[in-house]
Amino acid sequence: MRIAELSRVGGVSTATIKYYIREGLLPSGRLTSSNQARYTEDHVHRLRLIRALLDLGGLTISSIRDIVTALDSPVGSVDLRAMVAKEPHAGPLATIAADPRTIEKVRSLTEQRGWTAPADSPEFATVVEVLDTLRELGQDRFADRLDDYAEAAQRAAAIDDEILGACDGDGNRAESLVVGAALGDVLLSALRGLARNGSGTAPSPALVTAGRNGAET
Amino acid sequence: MRIAELSRVGGVSTATIKYYIREGLLPSGRLTSSNQARYTEDHVHRLRLIRALLDLGGLTISSIRDIVTALDSPVGSVDLRAMVAKEPHAGPLATIAADPRTIEKVRSLTEQRGWTAPADSPEFATVVEVLDTLRELGQDRFADRLDDYAEAAQRAAAIDDEILGACDGDGNRAESLVVGAALGDVLLSALRGLARNGSGTAPSPALVTAGRNGAET
Repeated sequence: MRIAELSRVGGVSTATIKYYIREGLLPSGRLTSSNQARYTEDHVHRLRLIRALLDLGGLTISSIRDIVTALDSPVGSVDLRAMVAKEPHAGPLATIAADPRTIEKVRSLTEQRGWTAPADSPEFATVVEVLDTLRELGQDRFADRLDDYAEAAQRAAAIDDEILGACDGDGNRAESLVVGAALGDVLLSALRGLARNGSGTAPSPALVTAGRNGAET
Repeated sequence: MRIAELSRVGGVSTATIKYYIREGLLPSGRLTSSNQARYTEDHVHRLRLIRALLDLGGLTISSIRDIVTALDSPVGSVDLRAMVAKEPHAGPLATIAADPRTIEKVRSLTEQRGWTAPADSPEFATVVEVLDTLRELGQDRFADRLDDYAEAAQRAAAIDDEILGACDGDGNRAESLVVGAALGDVLLSALRGLARNGSGTAPSPALVTAGRNGAET
């Protein structure tokens, strides 16, 4: 198909398609003349993957470039999941030096649950970081329920593993892994929101402020 | 305390503090002279909340402005959780018009599980959007396990509700709600990553591409 058709089917402008090609997200079409290129169903599929990771997964163009490069690369040793992990989770908060007790707490959690991920994995660092931040914000109630949240997360992970296990030997496994990691978090987050009984509105935030600002005046 | 002290304790530069004040994220200090302001522990706390939502929660400055404005407002009728929901989840993908069967599927899921969130909630729209996108990407395996993922999400939500229930009448509930929604997703996502047994590396992504590009050449 021509770029106009790809644009129609993919639901993105031709300018955007050319931008993705320039950025290395989308392979260029097969040139049929000096100013004509042909695109295939693979381009349509790749375009959909890009939009899903961008619009739903909230990934950056550069993260997506790394991911599709890995998907297209013959080397399978790169950690695709780490690429899906978003920037905010990358480094520790400037205000926080990890509390050794928190690190120990997470290490024993992973040990008790038989989780194989190493203590130097980005996920491990993120868990420690969130727990320390919750305590710093006086939200210990959440940190105290770590094992219960871990149980819920483990159930979701078990489903992921079953699905990806079923993909083994399937050429599409690499993409399933990326999509599952990126869209799975969005799905779980939205389902968790739907499942909450409590309303999202605050009874009287004024109480908070009155209490706080009181100290200032 | 003076701004230099607030900067030291909060772990952010004075320039950043002034930026947050200009942007309406942080209340200004109490002026003690024409060029001197005093800050309180409330400023330290608010600064930590801003950093947590920004660095860990991945929220934008403007989302955080809306949130802290709501936290400081006497009107409690605003949906704080909706404010925490990130942009990517806001609107439907350009490429996708929601499939009525998917909407029906999600409606029956919420009905069966006794979830009270309305069908016009952003979370409902996000679930529909993710399911349609998964099918469009040929990842039906994930969409087919919707109820299992819902079970895992419901467990996490039950913990949230217990914690927020314990906060009722507590002036800090509004902030707990925001922190729980923003950091809870990050925590669950990281725990889910830790809990996975499957490695994040692809056996041979080359297979994917060989199969795909083959059609182009």
